[in-house]
Amino acid sequence: MLRFLTAGESHGPALTAILEGMPAGLPLSAHDLANDLARRQTSYGAGGRMKIEQDEARILAGVMADQTTGAPIALLIENKDYAKWRDKEIEPMTTPRPGHADLTGAVKYGYRDLRVALERASARETAARVAVGSVCRVLLAQFGVQIGSYVTAIGGVEADQARLDALSFSDRFALAEGNDLRCPDLEVLEAMRKRVWDCMQARDTVGGVFEVAVLGLPPGLGSHVHFDRRLGGRLLGAVGSIHAIKGVEIGHAFENAAKYGTEVHDEIFTDEDGRLVRKTNRSGGL
Amino acid sequence: MLRFLTAGESHGPALTAILEGMPAGLPLSAHDLANDLARRQTSYGAGGRMKIEQDEARILAGVMADQTTGAPIALLIENKDYAKWRDKEIEPMTTPRPGHADLTGAVKYGYRDLRVALERASARETAARVAVGSVCRVLLAQFGVQIGSYVTAIGGVEADQARLDALSFSDRFALAEGNDLRCPDLEVLEAMRKRVWDCMQARDTVGGVFEVAVLGLPPGLGSHVHFDRRLGGRLLGAVGSIHAIKGVEIGHAFENAAKYGTEVHDEIFTDEDGRLVRKTNRSGGL
Amino acid sequence: MLRFLTAGESHGPALTAILEGMPAGLPLSAHDLANDLARRQTSYGAGGRMKIEQDEARILAGVMADQTTGAPIALLIENKDYAKWRDKEIEPMTTPRPGHADLTGAVKYGYRDLRVALERASARETAARVAVGSVCRVLLAQFGVQIGSYVTAIGGVEADQARLDALSFSDRFALAEGNDLRCPDLEVLEAMRKRVWDCMQARDTVGGVFEVAVLGLPPGLGSHVHFDRRLGGRLLGAVGSIHAIKGVEIGHAFENAAKYGTEVHDEIFTDEDGRLVRKTNRSGGL
Amino acid sequence: MLRFLTAGESHGPALTAILEGMPAGLPLSAHDLANDLARRQTSYGAGGRMKIEQDEARILAGVMADQTTGAPIALLIENKDYAKWRDKEIEPMTTPRPGHADLTGAVKYGYRDLRVALERASARETAARVAVGSVCRVLLAQFGVQIGSYVTAIGGVEADQARLDALSFSDRFALAEGNDLRCPDLEVLEAMRKRVWDCMQARDTVGGVFEVAVLGLPPGLGSHVHFDRRLGGRLLGAVGSIHAIKGVEIGHAFENAAKYGTEVHDEIFTDEDGRLVRKTNRSGGL
Repeated sequence: MLRFLTAGESHGPALTAILEGMPAGLPLSAHDLANDLARRQTSYGAGGRMKIEQDEARILAGVMADQTTGAPIALLIENKDYAKWRDKEIEPMTTPRPGHADLTGAVKYGYRDLRVALERASARETAARVAVGSVCRVLLAQFGVQIGSYVTAIGGVEADQARLDALSFSDRFALAEGNDLRCPDLEVLEAMRKRVWDCMQARDTVGGVFEVAVLGLPPGLGSHVHFDRRLGGRLLGAVGSIHAIKGVEIGHAFENAAKYGTEVHDEIFTDEDGRLVRKTNRSGGL
Repeated sequence: MLRFLTAGESHGPALTAILEGMPAGLPLSAHDLANDLARRQTSYGAGGRMKIEQDEARILAGVMADQTTGAPIALLIENKDYAKWRDKEIEPMTTPRPGHADLTGAVKYGYRDLRVALERASARETAARVAVGSVCRVLLAQFGVQIGSYVTAIGGVEADQARLDALSFSDRFALAEGNDLRCPDLEVLEAMRKRVWDCMQARDTVGGVFEVAVLGLPPGLGSHVHFDRRLGGRLLGAVGSIHAIKGVEIGHAFENAAKYGTEVHDEIFTDEDGRLVRKTNRSGGL
Repeated sequence: MLRFLTAGESHGPALTAILEGMPAGLPLSAHDLANDLARRQTSYGAGGRMKIEQDEARILAGVMADQTTGAPIALLIENKDYAKWRDKEIEPMTTPRPGHADLTGAVKYGYRDLRVALERASARETAARVAVGSVCRVLLAQFGVQIGSYVTAIGGVEADQARLDALSFSDRFALAEGNDLRCPDLEVLEAMRKRVWDCMQARDTVGGVFEVAVLGLPPGLGSHVHFDRRLGGRLLGAVGSIHAIKGVEIGHAFENAAKYGTEVHDEIFTDEDGRLVRKTNRSGGL
Repeated sequence: MLRFLTAGESHGPALTAILEGMPAGLPLSAHDLANDLARRQTSYGAGGRMKIEQDEARILAGVMADQTTGAPIALLIENKDYAKWRDKEIEPMTTPRPGHADLTGAVKYGYRDLRVALERASARETAARVAVGSVCRVLLAQFGVQIGSYVTAIGGVEADQARLDALSFSDRFALAEGNDLRCPDLEVLEAMRKRVWDCMQARDTVGGVFEVAVLGLPPGLGSHVHFDRRLGGRLLGAVGSIHAIKGVEIGHAFENAAKYGTEVHDEIFTDEDGRLVRKTNRSGGL
């Protein structure tokens, strides 16, 4: 069993995480986490905060001689502008913003200053989760499992499905890494960038859609035997726990809901070597 | 902390569930579960199995003198056709069906007969979960919380959003209870029914979309303080653990993803009594 | 991860348990549980209730063709005298007994009739746990692991340590199975039986001490990496959750507390084949 | 639900802990943890390491303006001699010590250098748990609950039960705080100190016994309704997870096991105000 806890406020001294249950003998150093932490901070239109931080995670425990020991792994990401904030006199915040935990947090925990909710509810918390996920990614890589993601729509500007379909997942990952909108369909980049720019000028925000793909996963993770072992629910729950995520689908589920079962299942064939194979990936691989 | 386990195979002697953590003093009897179990079995186009069962749950523990005692609640739903199946000679099943746990289950657990996976992976398991949910519904009703659901699309035939918007949630629930497609937009019923009928003639299946609404919930359930306390993720995870569910959204999330933030948030106003209120419900209430 | 829930009242219709996480392919039938359930009911001086029941567990789920399937295992033990109690008019119980959950249960859950606490707090609940443990014992037996226990003291009448030390654990188990006091030191049986008899005449009860030994266990269960993975704590917690257990020690811990470290550790030697061995078992093997 | 994880090696950069689930609004600062951390380090005969450290815990998260916020509390205790160890060339350790995790850890996790097991298995880990417990103690103090402990025996030198019985628990706590053996029976201090000294001269160790008492606890914590909610088992499990603890009893359980039930129960009386009271504390208060 793998489990983790995170802690840390947006303008506190540091974010921390403890990841318990990682096996021993996995090569791991702080360098392995740098890429993912940097990716979290690169994006067109991101707030100034993102640029300031340049997060670095220190591994405080669970790793000796660049190998995991099986003991809990402690990760620490200092908030580099903490010193600046620590001694500032900050006005209490009293007007709750919609779409944030300001109001609910204050009601639930009895905060007088809404800033107390904001400090922990901030998406900055995900930096700790990115660090934890990065360790898990190193473990999965040992088994040839690769996880990637890319943006397919921003504020209604959508990548072209046909152009996406022409690309392998690895290519989509690579192309997404190459631009600050993280979109593999290069032909819509300009329109996406304009959409974000217009939005920033209007001091507004826009939603978007991204896809996550896992390659090289063996079958049999999760299980049908009990509701809380089902992979579908666990994935939806995990992704849905990220700030600003309001919907998750496996494959093009909402589109598929309008179709016949025979159009959305992935038929099982026997290949020439007698192995069972599927020629399609309509239902997201679960 | 509420927790539960379910057990039972589709053609075994019974489904069982144990629900631990329910408070004492809640009025509860088997009658309270009958409605929800019956609803699970009523639907246009459902398999013959559904009609045979007419599920009844017995409460074997945790309730004395029609009140919960705080002790674990044991629920038992007998499979009425078990006797018939028990002595039957059944051919082992060797061809896995796509979209089912047949193949993965066999690979993971080493089954030779795919029927072993099917027996537990069957959606019949949800009868046990419906019974558990029904007990929880009785608890929530004590606090004035009401949960309902209704179908908004079947195989591409969609309820009209404007007609839905003209109905209160309570009315939608009531209208949905009144027909075997569980759709509150009566004007599309005929088209939906035809879609299902055509599909049955073609020995195929169709997907669909349904909405769940919870009324009367106080703010502050869930929390921003830790990723696994966030209500969004927990709801997505719970709903996503149900068979055949491949996507979940809070509000019209995928539609909202194309919009500006100002178009999808629910602004907070002060009413004449100085209370904070919202006049819209665009983002699903979370 | 193995987990289980139990339910059931002392005079309710049945005790049930669901055990989730058992691997597939383990040969298992209701007969495998009979021995352990019977042992729970055989003891000199036990109440009349014990004799009436002759518990039998039915396996309602998780086993097909006498093999576990990996699905949750549901166990049902009917209370044979339920029919008799169901329709009886029973006086509410209003005087709490010391050493029972009567008072605390009533305070915590708001019971007016103390019998409600008693019904679940009764040691009869352990029948469900015995059935669960019995399934686990079948699993462990596949790996050559054997668990046994025996009584070493009743009401101050103690088995002789030197005579015990002269017996292998297997012999102690076998001798204990052979008498209704479950004591392997046959020379104290008479005195123990007299102690129990005197106590019954005085309408009193007596305490006692028993030892549990696990044979054939591979090293490395539990772990030093996190407090809640430590085997010592987990064993103490599990045994301590049984009714009437007020103290647990690993080896003769309380006796050892008066000794030097060098007297209680088990020195590690290299045997002629170069394997690491221990020649003593002073600290209970952990 | 309160939960926590700890991390950290004995000679690594720091020990950390994250405590999740603490309510908001509790006054808390690093000073509150200093006493308990210091107490862990003061004892006659302790290793030199203890004296070096003078542990200080920093609170990195979960507290703002000296009040808990409901967010996870992150605690960091730096290992002050880390810098010294970091660059040292240390011989791998290849001879396992009995009574430690050296051998089992290496077998389980595949360590070549036994020092890897030792680093996490070290009792230094308890410093993180002391810090976590210290936060919980502050919470309990709000409800008037006081926890204390004292030594009653070291290497066979025992405090006199009659002298202990003459002291209130508060007095025992206070007396124990006053000496480096933490024993409230001042008349045995000399003998205890001599025992430890002799033992140190012989380069050996000795065991001991200590008692923990909780004052002011309301009834109804824990529950009879499910095995893993029972307070007895949870306390035994928690205490048993501490290094070097091999036995735990509630009250004088092992002594009581030789007695009649009527001698060890605590009879329930009605006082003049009609309240239920107990005049004895024979069975440890559970």
